[in-house]
Amino acid sequence: MRQKRFILQENEIPTHWYNIQADMPNKPLPPLNPATHKPLDADDLSHIFNKECSKQELDIEHAWIEIPEEVREKYTYYRSTPLVRAYAFEEALGTSAHIYFKNESTNPLGSHKINSAIPQCYYCKQEGDTNVTTETGAGQWGAALSYAAKLYGLEAAVYQVKISMQQKPYRSAIMRTFGATVEGSPSMSTRAGKDIITRDPNHPGSLGTAISEAIELATTTPNCKYTLGSVLNHVALHQTVIGLEAEKQMEMAGEYPDTVIACFGGGSNFGGIAFPFMRHNIKDGKRTEFIAAEPESCPKLTRGKFEYDFGDEAGYTPLLPMFTLGHDFKPANIHAGGLRYHGAGMIISQLIRDNYMHGVDIPQLESFEASMIFARAEGIIPAPESGHAIAAAIREAKKATEEGKEKVILFCLSGHGLIDMTAYESYINGDLQNYSITDSEIEKNLEDVPQFDINEIEK
Amino acid sequence: MRQKRFILQENEIPTHWYNIQADMPNKPLPPLNPATHKPLDADDLSHIFNKECSKQELDIEHAWIEIPEEVREKYTYYRSTPLVRAYAFEEALGTSAHIYFKNESTNPLGSHKINSAIPQCYYCKQEGDTNVTTETGAGQWGAALSYAAKLYGLEAAVYQVKISMQQKPYRSAIMRTFGATVEGSPSMSTRAGKDIITRDPNHPGSLGTAISEAIELATTTPNCKYTLGSVLNHVALHQTVIGLEAEKQMEMAGEYPDTVIACFGGGSNFGGIAFPFMRHNIKDGKRTEFIAAEPESCPKLTRGKFEYDFGDEAGYTPLLPMFTLGHDFKPANIHAGGLRYHGAGMIISQLIRDNYMHGVDIPQLESFEASMIFARAEGIIPAPESGHAIAAAIREAKKATEEGKEKVILFCLSGHGLIDMTAYESYINGDLQNYSITDSEIEKNLEDVPQFDINEIEK
Repeated sequence: MRQKRFILQENEIPTHWYNIQADMPNKPLPPLNPATHKPLDADDLSHIFNKECSKQELDIEHAWIEIPEEVREKYTYYRSTPLVRAYAFEEALGTSAHIYFKNESTNPLGSHKINSAIPQCYYCKQEGDTNVTTETGAGQWGAALSYAAKLYGLEAAVYQVKISMQQKPYRSAIMRTFGATVEGSPSMSTRAGKDIITRDPNHPGSLGTAISEAIELATTTPNCKYTLGSVLNHVALHQTVIGLEAEKQMEMAGEYPDTVIACFGGGSNFGGIAFPFMRHNIKDGKRTEFIAAEPESCPKLTRGKFEYDFGDEAGYTPLLPMFTLGHDFKPANIHAGGLRYHGAGMIISQLIRDNYMHGVDIPQLESFEASMIFARAEGIIPAPESGHAIAAAIREAKKATEEGKEKVILFCLSGHGLIDMTAYESYINGDLQNYSITDSEIEKNLEDVPQFDINEIEK
Repeated sequence: MRQKRFILQENEIPTHWYNIQADMPNKPLPPLNPATHKPLDADDLSHIFNKECSKQELDIEHAWIEIPEEVREKYTYYRSTPLVRAYAFEEALGTSAHIYFKNESTNPLGSHKINSAIPQCYYCKQEGDTNVTTETGAGQWGAALSYAAKLYGLEAAVYQVKISMQQKPYRSAIMRTFGATVEGSPSMSTRAGKDIITRDPNHPGSLGTAISEAIELATTTPNCKYTLGSVLNHVALHQTVIGLEAEKQMEMAGEYPDTVIACFGGGSNFGGIAFPFMRHNIKDGKRTEFIAAEPESCPKLTRGKFEYDFGDEAGYTPLLPMFTLGHDFKPANIHAGGLRYHGAGMIISQLIRDNYMHGVDIPQLESFEASMIFARAEGIIPAPESGHAIAAAIREAKKATEEGKEKVILFCLSGHGLIDMTAYESYINGDLQNYSITDSEIEKNLEDVPQFDINEIEK
């Protein structure tokens, strides 16, 4: 019988995360203090984040960072996740490609997010914090953070993007099941939220806005740290367990990916699966193609500008060197709430500049069409976010078929869509639409980005 | 690092299902034709079910029935499921017991139901059917059947218990995602449904009612077979993959269960995990205790009567020898929709008479309290049905702690509760209640059961 699932033994689960910064030929530009425009150090970051993550964030020296024993202990509750050869999906497509997916949907809380929630809460606990706060879009990160906080006896407060909260009411129930406090963002509980509501009472919220609120809470609450589910370097670092496992599992399958694909919001799931393979492009001359699948309606990778910009709407974060649509960009209300973010992480942005990877834009309807094909073949209903990766995989599979090639495609199934059934219902009923955006709209939105001469800083 | 998850290689997945009927010292009494009161043979059943399942239903000779190669091929998309040593749950309870759970919640569609949906649809396809129909309560079975039907290119029509459909709207969306037609039951699309609605326009539905409707559709539609997700012998037979895997996995863990626990609706998940272990009680003198956890509000195992009764409300099924509360019993609207059924399967009923197992009654609030403890420890939100097994496991763990024993407890986590978040929300808000039932209510409901002298039939 042909083998479909490749699973590692507990003792094969990675002992170290992979820090691609150490191997990058051009390091990411430094984050800047918005007041002084001076590069930040770990001490600056640790007013918001725990110390260890602040250190990891700026570490450009160590390619391998040890996973604390207690974090590995928690990982082994659900890892390794299966690497699956998607024979049924291949047959549904009639493709000559070999398609593998790394299934992070069977994780606690149904997505990859738990991989970083656990270490972030672990470090906070170690450093004497009692509270954590965060933002969440679709709620995948908020749910994971709520559970991880409970594991370490921390109180969690989550700002959830209002539109996503309304679209996916079950997710806030999940967070409350784990004892978290959940606020729809923009909320009246912070100055940032109040300002936004005052300007625009019907603001649907965005990750940028929710981040502003959570940071404000963290900086005004004793022993409370802010945690982030994507964008930052240390989050992608934690997620590299995905790719490191997948590397061993692909070896078990006797293949190596020609193409690695993941959906793209802030870059943590993408970096998680891609970076461990990308190191072989950087160091060993491999020529794997890396594709980040973003929504057509939020095209920062393909149509954004590389600039120093804020990570949040209100401008509380450091200035980050990123491909951005402008920090006050208001993404369309697509169901892939986790992809509604205006910028790309610093590492990713540099890797795009250096041509190690590229983005593709997926219209909402194409993502759901792809998800339906996948679900009916493999029996797993994908998160709308993951649907973007599947759509990109289908495009690549079609190309391979046309060229008659047995191309090996690996994508990350970052989560399941069981909490997103209203979105599927809308799709089936023909009520979903695509949202595109014009160049002039993008131009206009970029006007608010602080202007720097990047070349100047690179010197 | 202590090992938590035990997973089999693909070539260790069972090649045969275990048919406990062949080993039972006292065989189940035969199902009877309601008109003639004569025992039924496989031909009689095959008007409703596919031929192979009809044969399996009455097979008291073969202890091992081969799993068709094509079914095993589908099983290996998601099996083996993990056997997990629940250290975090043990720590939350402060128990001396060793608690293991077999995690069927990571299956496609989130429950054990797929294990029987696949072979049932496979056999229908093999025998030339084009359509399948069924009933579903919470929707776990309907979802699994919809996907399995799609895998084999069959059209599926599902009657979902109306109250469950309202409580869990996402489940019908899942079924529609897989292309199934979904009707709330009682519906106006069958005579049985119309009769019930006429008598009681606000009838919330029950599995018994939905079964009547599905059978009526199957018997009035060409090339359409009825499929059932529990109660019958062949369904429990297919589910024995769970226990057979668990047996090997417990061996990997170096332990053998003192107690095996599962929630109980019709008996398929219970039989699935219990029968393979029970064979060692029957044949090898093991003394494992088997506990079926049923809702306090639907106590057929502990307070029902052993009688010949119909499997459905309208009286379309054969007469089955079962512990029953009466085929027109209206269970309270608890959230564990899959446990709202009036009777126990034939095999289970005989095993209870012969003291190989017993039932326990779990109040709704106790089941949710148990689920909350489990969720916060293990990160998996259990289906409300599975919450009953967890509550029973907690009771047993407490006993073990009081006795200072390292008792080994194994339970089946039959499914996750991500589609049941409204139930958790109600529980957290204090809006849930217990439902008990008086002896005289049970007595009264049993009056409609056809009266036979069981002793007479046993001769």
